[in-house]
Amino acid sequence: MAYQIDITLTPHKKEKPASDKLGFGIHYTDHMFILDYSVDKGWHDARIVPYGPITLDPAAKVFHYGQTIFEGLKAYRTADGRIQLFRPQKNFQRLNLSNARLSIPDVDGELALEALKALVRVDQDWIPDAPGTSLYIRPFVIATQAALGVAPSTHYKFMIIMSPVGAYYAEGINPVKIFVESDHVRAVKGGVGEAKTAGNYAAGLNAQEAASKKGYSQILWLDGVHRSYIEEVGSMNVFFKINGEVHTPALNGSILAGITRDSMIQLIKSWGIPVIERPITIEEIYEAGRTGALEEAFGTGTAAVISPVGELNWRDERLTINGGKTGELSSKLYETLTGIQNGTLPDPFGWTVEVPQA
Amino acid sequence: MAYQIDITLTPHKKEKPASDKLGFGIHYTDHMFILDYSVDKGWHDARIVPYGPITLDPAAKVFHYGQTIFEGLKAYRTADGRIQLFRPQKNFQRLNLSNARLSIPDVDGELALEALKALVRVDQDWIPDAPGTSLYIRPFVIATQAALGVAPSTHYKFMIIMSPVGAYYAEGINPVKIFVESDHVRAVKGGVGEAKTAGNYAAGLNAQEAASKKGYSQILWLDGVHRSYIEEVGSMNVFFKINGEVHTPALNGSILAGITRDSMIQLIKSWGIPVIERPITIEEIYEAGRTGALEEAFGTGTAAVISPVGELNWRDERLTINGGKTGELSSKLYETLTGIQNGTLPDPFGWTVEVPQA
Repeated sequence: MAYQIDITLTPHKKEKPASDKLGFGIHYTDHMFILDYSVDKGWHDARIVPYGPITLDPAAKVFHYGQTIFEGLKAYRTADGRIQLFRPQKNFQRLNLSNARLSIPDVDGELALEALKALVRVDQDWIPDAPGTSLYIRPFVIATQAALGVAPSTHYKFMIIMSPVGAYYAEGINPVKIFVESDHVRAVKGGVGEAKTAGNYAAGLNAQEAASKKGYSQILWLDGVHRSYIEEVGSMNVFFKINGEVHTPALNGSILAGITRDSMIQLIKSWGIPVIERPITIEEIYEAGRTGALEEAFGTGTAAVISPVGELNWRDERLTINGGKTGELSSKLYETLTGIQNGTLPDPFGWTVEVPQA
Repeated sequence: MAYQIDITLTPHKKEKPASDKLGFGIHYTDHMFILDYSVDKGWHDARIVPYGPITLDPAAKVFHYGQTIFEGLKAYRTADGRIQLFRPQKNFQRLNLSNARLSIPDVDGELALEALKALVRVDQDWIPDAPGTSLYIRPFVIATQAALGVAPSTHYKFMIIMSPVGAYYAEGINPVKIFVESDHVRAVKGGVGEAKTAGNYAAGLNAQEAASKKGYSQILWLDGVHRSYIEEVGSMNVFFKINGEVHTPALNGSILAGITRDSMIQLIKSWGIPVIERPITIEEIYEAGRTGALEEAFGTGTAAVISPVGELNWRDERLTINGGKTGELSSKLYETLTGIQNGTLPDPFGWTVEVPQA
């Protein structure tokens, strides 16, 4: 099925930042995609327009009741000049799971993918090609009805914006120090933790600031009920290599079902290493650390791909992991997944989707 | 201290809706207040301008990470033509508690109150005077920095918008049927439940829709840990009259510290009725219902003031309260608090703040 997507090109292309000055989510491309929703018309008026400010009533529901969800994925420029996306269908599947949880109407996943490809094509000169760089893509939905009653909105905007991003590890992949949070929680079963929605991130800002002041770059989140089961690290999923096996928290309703998480699990299994998804307590990780059974720990997500954990601090007890160095499995996962993503390695899983440039 | 608040009056005043067509949060007055924040300048540029759309970058943090908080209060027109606010200082105190939890910089409470009075004065013709009507006031803060990194924003807007609202009970105060939610939770200790922030409301939309389809107008929320302790009803605090005493859930970190809640507690105590703030389970409420000890139940909040509960449904077991009728205490609380608010009764607590009209 072909969708009608109107394209209005900008008369004023912006200057592109140097590839060593990209940062993360600071610069935006020349265009953006917008799709409107009203109860009367459903989703309508698909269009690519010049990137620019949007105008909303100050009573728009997104400002007051947080009815909003988002996704994150990347486009890569291969060495032979092709453009590829990484598992974009999974993002739009999850977008609709998030929509359902937030009482937002479904977005047609095929239209979304078509729109994304068209947008990437229009702004293809923005895809950086220096090692480790990529084009970060942020699809999101916001509730726009101007009404202060607490009820689902009658109007929404689905948008896609894009930002060229730098190498996450400018000086090579490097382990981070993680603070295990005992006071605040990110989410709880029955809440919105498995949806990719704004409130989950707002809830974590305080603890992240406090950890940062203590010299820790991320939070390890424990569950809200027992304050014992490990949930996520920062805004990443988390993995532990223990006695030659890989363990990761099972999806339990309060953890985001990361697409990088799913890809890592498939990769690790393909190498003959067992992956066990199950509830994991912080106590047993510390115990495994003390006995030497804990070999590696790492977070996984779209932005960093992999983030090795060199040290945990839980209730003032520090646990150094793998001597504070990046582990062998972490390195291999990073090299393999980024290789598939940027096209330097074959893609045996059929994960990449090429964007035709014609 | 006098604050400089620039005022730009609209050249085009809107037509005001009829007092029987007000609804809740649908119509907005002619002006709004805006205060900007940047890390460099702090809060600055206090101004009253014509009500109208605001323009934000699509990467503004409020859209993606939910860094936003709000307040709700009302202005009333008294029979002798005065304008009064109800405990506005409490709202700005709570606004800053919410700000702290969401890593948003403090707003000067005195400036906020000064701005609110100035705005109400400018739009005083919008305060309806039919019985039960009032001017609903919505102060809120949104994070406006265009950056996709998960970190507190460098820029914010504090705004106040206002909406004339109709009588909540057009045909007299009426008990509602409440569904006790067993799957979803609104908030959990360690989360953001005691902050008045968007994510808490987003989390409740799903359950509210489902309850509505079953014929229930609100949700009774249970705690996220034990799924047993009563937290809030809809977006109100909740009270139970049992054997001549009034019980309400203690503020525990996941419940909003309602200003109407606090006022009700003071009123009830002033009448010689004990008020006990403590953890309350749904099991004991059902038990008290079965034995006849449960005399009344009601929610309290700014919008409805009081909302009597006529029926609970928990796991398909229905509990009728006070024969499904509004109780004596509920009625007396409603009459007394609305009387103080609209100036037909004296204000022994010093709760009302007059807005000079000069």
